[in-house]
Amino acid sequence: VRGLYAIVDPERCAGRDPALVAAAILRGGCAILQLRAKKGSDREVLALARALRARTREHGVPFVVNDRPDLALLADADGVHVGQDDLPIAEVKRIAPRLEVGVSTHDLAQLRAAIGAGASLVGFGPVFATASKDRPDPVVGTDRLAAAVRAAGGVPVVAIGGIDLGAAARVRETGAPLAAAIRSLGESSDPEAAARALHRALLGETA
Amino acid sequence: VRGLYAIVDPERCAGRDPALVAAAILRGGCAILQLRAKKGSDREVLALARALRARTREHGVPFVVNDRPDLALLADADGVHVGQDDLPIAEVKRIAPRLEVGVSTHDLAQLRAAIGAGASLVGFGPVFATASKDRPDPVVGTDRLAAAVRAAGGVPVVAIGGIDLGAAARVRETGAPLAAAIRSLGESSDPEAAARALHRALLGETA
Repeated sequence: VRGLYAIVDPERCAGRDPALVAAAILRGGCAILQLRAKKGSDREVLALARALRARTREHGVPFVVNDRPDLALLADADGVHVGQDDLPIAEVKRIAPRLEVGVSTHDLAQLRAAIGAGASLVGFGPVFATASKDRPDPVVGTDRLAAAVRAAGGVPVVAIGGIDLGAAARVRETGAPLAAAIRSLGESSDPEAAARALHRALLGETA
Repeated sequence: VRGLYAIVDPERCAGRDPALVAAAILRGGCAILQLRAKKGSDREVLALARALRARTREHGVPFVVNDRPDLALLADADGVHVGQDDLPIAEVKRIAPRLEVGVSTHDLAQLRAAIGAGASLVGFGPVFATASKDRPDPVVGTDRLAAAVRAAGGVPVVAIGGIDLGAAARVRETGAPLAAAIRSLGESSDPEAAARALHRALLGETA
């Protein structure tokens, strides 16, 4: 898997229906689509996860739910993505052995720990400054991203944090196969075009 | 099971260690102990749930986790208790078939739906005015509680909302086998004595 790791956050969709934003992103193109839902009741999040699961399936795109293995299982997602304060990988695998588990990491020690615990994929960042998180971790930059890619030993690294079209080439040069975007998709006036351009740029294709 | 359904909420422990508060309640006596954790990271909640599971096991008391079947499974709880906005019973049972499922209900329609869906236990309330919830549902009173007990057809009903020692006799007269308490235990200067007195009063034993 290479290219755009598209993250749909209902709070970062400029007030539009997140399922429609996801549909537009999928038309534009992405390698993986993740739901990032930090608010809303479990029923609401599950309903949204299922809507996104249906859309991703139409496009043959893997679907990931953040934080919650139970909701990921119920939505028939391919994976769950957890942060450092969420359930550890070993716990996730106990209750959801069929899920791929991605982990957000912010330094090489966290990255190595995640891979040692069996992560299928590791996020690494924030690579650049970001406004998508209320309390972002310190910026890591592209040199440390490149070091993370080397340290990951083949486990896919998702560059995350402040990644837009202008940064795509620099991210690609680090060897990171995937790069995540939230606001530059969901808050774009044209999420389909934004996804298409960013996915292509990350793949190194000319537009 | 009859008597006190003790709910431990870390935010309603007067700043004390919730595991110590739980231990005191268990020494005093209760029929079931539930963790109610609305804040904190999943890792923190799981650690607390496991601490409470260990304490309840020492006393042979069933242990329930609120809202989250994944955390309930990982903590080896006996059950999970869900509200009307949490996962529906059918979804909980899909991912956690071994858990007993309790459901909070606030009117007879919700109570009947929960029992129809296979609830092991139903909460009903708030019976009296309560300060434990930020946005409480309308007070139902003891007459409607008695109607709920009749409608439940043998499924245990947990009276909840503003229940203290002075209300125990009125609750018992409705036929509800269990009554929940949060603040009157966790915010008591002596949770052990508070639990002992309330559990006995609910059982109709003289102190």
